[in-house]
Amino acid sequence: MNLALPEIVYGEIRNHEKLIKSIVGNRKAFLITDKNTTQCRELFKESILFQLPYIELEAGDSFKTINQVSSIWKFLNDYSASREDIIFLLGGGVVSDMGGFAAATYKRGIDFINIPTTLLAMVDASIGGKTGFNFSHFKNNIGTFSHPKKIFTDVHFLKTLPKPEFLSGMAEVFKHAIIGDSKFWNYLKEHNLKDLNHDYLITRSAELKTKIVQSDPEEKNIRKSLNLGHTIGHAIESYQIEVDFPTMHGFAIAKGIIIESFIAYKIGVTSKTVFLEIKSVLSNYFKGHLNFKIDLLKILTLVKGDKKNIKNKINFSLPVSIGKVLINQEIKEKELENLMKEFLEND
Amino acid sequence: MNLALPEIVYGEIRNHEKLIKSIVGNRKAFLITDKNTTQCRELFKESILFQLPYIELEAGDSFKTINQVSSIWKFLNDYSASREDIIFLLGGGVVSDMGGFAAATYKRGIDFINIPTTLLAMVDASIGGKTGFNFSHFKNNIGTFSHPKKIFTDVHFLKTLPKPEFLSGMAEVFKHAIIGDSKFWNYLKEHNLKDLNHDYLITRSAELKTKIVQSDPEEKNIRKSLNLGHTIGHAIESYQIEVDFPTMHGFAIAKGIIIESFIAYKIGVTSKTVFLEIKSVLSNYFKGHLNFKIDLLKILTLVKGDKKNIKNKINFSLPVSIGKVLINQEIKEKELENLMKEFLEND
Repeated sequence: MNLALPEIVYGEIRNHEKLIKSIVGNRKAFLITDKNTTQCRELFKESILFQLPYIELEAGDSFKTINQVSSIWKFLNDYSASREDIIFLLGGGVVSDMGGFAAATYKRGIDFINIPTTLLAMVDASIGGKTGFNFSHFKNNIGTFSHPKKIFTDVHFLKTLPKPEFLSGMAEVFKHAIIGDSKFWNYLKEHNLKDLNHDYLITRSAELKTKIVQSDPEEKNIRKSLNLGHTIGHAIESYQIEVDFPTMHGFAIAKGIIIESFIAYKIGVTSKTVFLEIKSVLSNYFKGHLNFKIDLLKILTLVKGDKKNIKNKINFSLPVSIGKVLINQEIKEKELENLMKEFLEND
Repeated sequence: MNLALPEIVYGEIRNHEKLIKSIVGNRKAFLITDKNTTQCRELFKESILFQLPYIELEAGDSFKTINQVSSIWKFLNDYSASREDIIFLLGGGVVSDMGGFAAATYKRGIDFINIPTTLLAMVDASIGGKTGFNFSHFKNNIGTFSHPKKIFTDVHFLKTLPKPEFLSGMAEVFKHAIIGDSKFWNYLKEHNLKDLNHDYLITRSAELKTKIVQSDPEEKNIRKSLNLGHTIGHAIESYQIEVDFPTMHGFAIAKGIIIESFIAYKIGVTSKTVFLEIKSVLSNYFKGHLNFKIDLLKILTLVKGDKKNIKNKINFSLPVSIGKVLINQEIKEKELENLMKEFLEND
């Protein structure tokens, strides 16, 4: 498939009023957002976006449910939205995932536009067309591949973002560096959070992801490299929801990257040096946020239910070096159990 | 988009065991079916299909709900189905619509194969990639465009079909004739139900639909012609569910075709002769099944919620002659109300 990914429009959203109006044309437009964006809306209340009929979802990954998706469908029905209309999704990954799914399935698909307000959404969730929601304890168990028509990325929204949320988003930025750009990795590890150039950070990270998605939109192949850290990370995230101690996505992923790098080292995919480099940089960067109490058997059960598995082997994308990842690394359950046990005993 | 539609494999399904096995390969395979197919399964219980793990849905359009879709997702999770596995959908349109939607969204899409068991599904629902379910009183309100990998059409399944079900399926066959083949129309009107050649009937009807879908898979244009009879027909069908007198799909559509032909005649799209031809053939063919008590205002409300509408005008596909249909015929609400009133007073 030769898919042209949607353009990312950078810059202040308030300077794009004309463009937004021309995209809407004479269609009806709607806004989907969540309770986390109250401050964003306060900042941008003059914008045409905030004159639109809107629905405000409950915020947080634990609310990424079929019930909230249904409430979006109901909202669109209540306003007699037609399949020619358009939806703006303002918020973090939860909004673009659920809102994108609702849009992609409402009357078999209505146009939508992503306006990410979190770092995580700007560098990751808003790009690549993955939509969906959690179902039966599985993260993003149900979803589609459906791309927005455009993405508006305005770093000013980040001013409203609580610090831990920003930090959480950095996990995917580090992941993109490990997958494809060792210079970027060095830049990240040599700068404190407050010294980072946001524009560079976001455009480079988004660029790395876009390039990969472009060449394999439906994750048959090379796009799987973006799953680095996610086989274990998703299981940790799901487990934390189960035990009522939800973690932010990025922290689960950072921990996942560390554990998966250990696995890569133990099965000979990477060197001990690379594992230790990844472990020390991420442990230091996310200090205080990675102390998960890990119930090995429950995590293994969740790992087995992962979307990425084929024929009962656990499928990993593992680092070879900083800037290179190997996909389709299959590990049998028993071996995984032993490796994780070894990691946890030494962690 | 240049989409190759899935092949339709005709002939006895029991002769296709090898092909089915080679399609499955070493994947896990699952069967989704409903309570209406008990007899089919009895007839074909030796088939490899009936050794598969299966879920049996409640039958009937009123059960085309998000709850049943969720139970398919749960079933797949319970069997740890991966996105590389495959699902067989055995049944009528309700099974292929809901099962197709569940498959298209489970882990962002798993392969599925349609095995239609009703006339309606063989000539219409199994072809064209429309999946979905009813939501908030609207027919197929939520769905996707997702094609099966193959379609197995075995006319022997029709032996198990109750007569009214067969008759209901004929409405879509007549519709295909009106849209694209006047000779086929003449063949249909000159033969009693029991004298019709099933093989010819089904292959010709499927061929007419396939040709249209092929040239416009996502219904931006010419595919809309297949909506003939459905703007009014869907509203009748939804209304009958609301008042707890569900009708079979085909009967609502037959009535919809008659009413829409009247509209076409009154606004000058077709001649009185064509309207009377369509009315007399269909009224005669579906005698005893089209006596709906029509609540005009409620029907109009339902028509307004139709997927096909753009910008508050009601969108119709209307017959010009037998074999030719005009799409995007927009009629204002008030005009529609008057025309329907006139039709009902003379019906």
